[in-house]
Amino acid sequence: MMSGWNIQASVAAKSTTNPIRAIVDTGKYKPNPEKALIPLSIGDPCVFGNLSVTQYVNQQLVNSINSDKYNGYPPSIGYPSARAAVAKFVQTPSSPLSADDIILASGASGAIEIALTALLNQGDNVLVPQPGFSLYECICKSKGFDLKHYNLIPSRSWEIDIDHLRSLIDTKTKAILINNPSNPCGSVYSKEHLQQILQVAEEYHLPIISDEIYAGMTWGGAEFIPIASLTTVVPVLSIGGIAKRFLVPGWRVGWIAIHDRNNVFDQIRKAIVSLSQLILGPNSLIQSVLPEILNTENPEIARFFNETNQTLEKHSRLTVESLSKIDGLNPISSSGTMYQMIGFDTSKFNGIEDDVVFMGKLLEEESVFVLPGTVFGMKNYFRIVFCAPNEKLQEAYTRIESFCNRHRKN
Amino acid sequence: MMSGWNIQASVAAKSTTNPIRAIVDTGKYKPNPEKALIPLSIGDPCVFGNLSVTQYVNQQLVNSINSDKYNGYPPSIGYPSARAAVAKFVQTPSSPLSADDIILASGASGAIEIALTALLNQGDNVLVPQPGFSLYECICKSKGFDLKHYNLIPSRSWEIDIDHLRSLIDTKTKAILINNPSNPCGSVYSKEHLQQILQVAEEYHLPIISDEIYAGMTWGGAEFIPIASLTTVVPVLSIGGIAKRFLVPGWRVGWIAIHDRNNVFDQIRKAIVSLSQLILGPNSLIQSVLPEILNTENPEIARFFNETNQTLEKHSRLTVESLSKIDGLNPISSSGTMYQMIGFDTSKFNGIEDDVVFMGKLLEEESVFVLPGTVFGMKNYFRIVFCAPNEKLQEAYTRIESFCNRHRKN
Repeated sequence: MMSGWNIQASVAAKSTTNPIRAIVDTGKYKPNPEKALIPLSIGDPCVFGNLSVTQYVNQQLVNSINSDKYNGYPPSIGYPSARAAVAKFVQTPSSPLSADDIILASGASGAIEIALTALLNQGDNVLVPQPGFSLYECICKSKGFDLKHYNLIPSRSWEIDIDHLRSLIDTKTKAILINNPSNPCGSVYSKEHLQQILQVAEEYHLPIISDEIYAGMTWGGAEFIPIASLTTVVPVLSIGGIAKRFLVPGWRVGWIAIHDRNNVFDQIRKAIVSLSQLILGPNSLIQSVLPEILNTENPEIARFFNETNQTLEKHSRLTVESLSKIDGLNPISSSGTMYQMIGFDTSKFNGIEDDVVFMGKLLEEESVFVLPGTVFGMKNYFRIVFCAPNEKLQEAYTRIESFCNRHRKN
Repeated sequence: MMSGWNIQASVAAKSTTNPIRAIVDTGKYKPNPEKALIPLSIGDPCVFGNLSVTQYVNQQLVNSINSDKYNGYPPSIGYPSARAAVAKFVQTPSSPLSADDIILASGASGAIEIALTALLNQGDNVLVPQPGFSLYECICKSKGFDLKHYNLIPSRSWEIDIDHLRSLIDTKTKAILINNPSNPCGSVYSKEHLQQILQVAEEYHLPIISDEIYAGMTWGGAEFIPIASLTTVVPVLSIGGIAKRFLVPGWRVGWIAIHDRNNVFDQIRKAIVSLSQLILGPNSLIQSVLPEILNTENPEIARFFNETNQTLEKHSRLTVESLSKIDGLNPISSSGTMYQMIGFDTSKFNGIEDDVVFMGKLLEEESVFVLPGTVFGMKNYFRIVFCAPNEKLQEAYTRIESFCNRHRKN
């Protein structure tokens, strides 16, 4: 370094780490060059090209572009028409919303960042699921917010350990964050379970941040119920976006729906609007098509949602069927999202002491890339993204089976 | 409020205010219902529809959409091809860049937020121009960073008062932020002036954040010179984007170009990459067209840039010619951007004690909306955005003239 120059990064920047990169991108493990890589790791439905947004959506976007009407700055919270469309899309009869209750953000990530920043000061804490999506930790650590992890119970389809949740609450707790349907679990909470969570929130007067980015992506009898629809008392910030449901995570348009209850969110509503002014909201062209594409009465959209869910259901079934046959693996059946968590019994294998080693050796030997549960805070599980085409998934599961057979203790 | 619920907004949220809204949107002044509103207030070239992105750019975007290849997550710092294109677009022979030196962000606003967050801790300060773009203050106050305002000198075409700049530096100063070409001044710094700034930075070992969102939007002999091209010693983060030059501020794609010098930015480079992971970068479709649209060797792009500058130059001339004829107004000729600052001599008018009252009464009586200098920290100036069509500008200036004549002291 040149004499006199001593430029240090800020504490915030140094505290911003992505647990997935820190654990997975160590350079320690490389795919087997003799086998084609099958990446089942990233939560991006577009990786293989088999799942794609419907052409109807593309056509709306092309029309917007050609109109030259949507190139200027929208209001920082989003076009009124776009917010009205989100309100209609997200609301239920018991949790009505208007355009004024919606703030658009740069992806659901941006929405989560704004929601947390509105509610927490440095040193405050938020309760988050374990296992859970690593971005919650990334944002909180960057901003000096504390996280307390409540346990999800695999044997109860990843329901929250309500007693554990309750035990974590202290005077610095400012919100309960839930993720339903869940990444990485693929679980979808029942009405009864959501009511249990609301009871805790009500008892301790804690608002809920509900990350519902996988809303509507369910099957096999599971029904997504927005937690806000079940309460007239607990205020809820529900987070959503088009990333997953429309298969366009790169488009970066998400939202916060403010479900206020008896005006207890007065300050938070203003706070969220203020915070939206820092980076001025998401892309205007994508905003402009929300009224068309969020209209579920449009048969083209209804068909697209249906078809996507049917494909994901088939892939989910294949995943559970293929992997539950393998001795030592225990897939916890998912009923939504595009994720499957698979328990892994270390006692049955030689030289595979944990999930990170499992991930590494599976990549090295079979070129199948999964994420170790450790990146979600859940040791000795691994997560599969089952968006790949059927034949790729089958090939991957065959390879996982050979791998397990090869390493299993006799 | 319901008993037991007491949800407070965070300090960060409460500290996030937009000075423009706070001063302008008080509801105190309304346009004259008998005259059509002419808004010359917002820095958005798309307001009137006379300035529009070239169809070539739209066509590239349509091609990207129809390819279905750019819907997934790009890397959080942006597609490598997009970053390579930005590097080529921003670099000069004396300040070369590679794709690795570029981080894409959600607009130049997002880029500025990341740059400041990488460099400053709470309680640190950054030197910013006065008058200057209000977002710097908005971001800093939200994050607990201090700002120190250095003066720009109107009589020297808004050059920096270098002695004043120097006098503000203390042990908590972490960067000098400059804005060239300048919003709200429309000034373009000479090579000599940029060298004076670099001398201060070098003496105190302070990095420079150079907001260059209006890069290339100059005329009448003024040439935009990137400050990074003039130093082999001072590290520079140059901020850019497509918002203004391509007339698409709603598209929200900006960037940071890291001009490191002797690796003194090692930590900052890592910091910026880490911080980009919080909201995962800008829209993928727009990213995908950067290689085509940032290619200035493409005659279609060169023609578009040229034409836009010619139009802006004509509007700038009309503005200065029209307003300098009015006794009591003093336009400081601009040679870039789309802004014009106009000094206003309160002693010549009755009952118009400052620029906020000037703005208010002008709106109320003539339905011409300008921004008072106070929102940029410069009392008794007002800013005009001269993007409106020629005839609208002429009408606005005629109305300003009547207004001034009506209120001028005899």
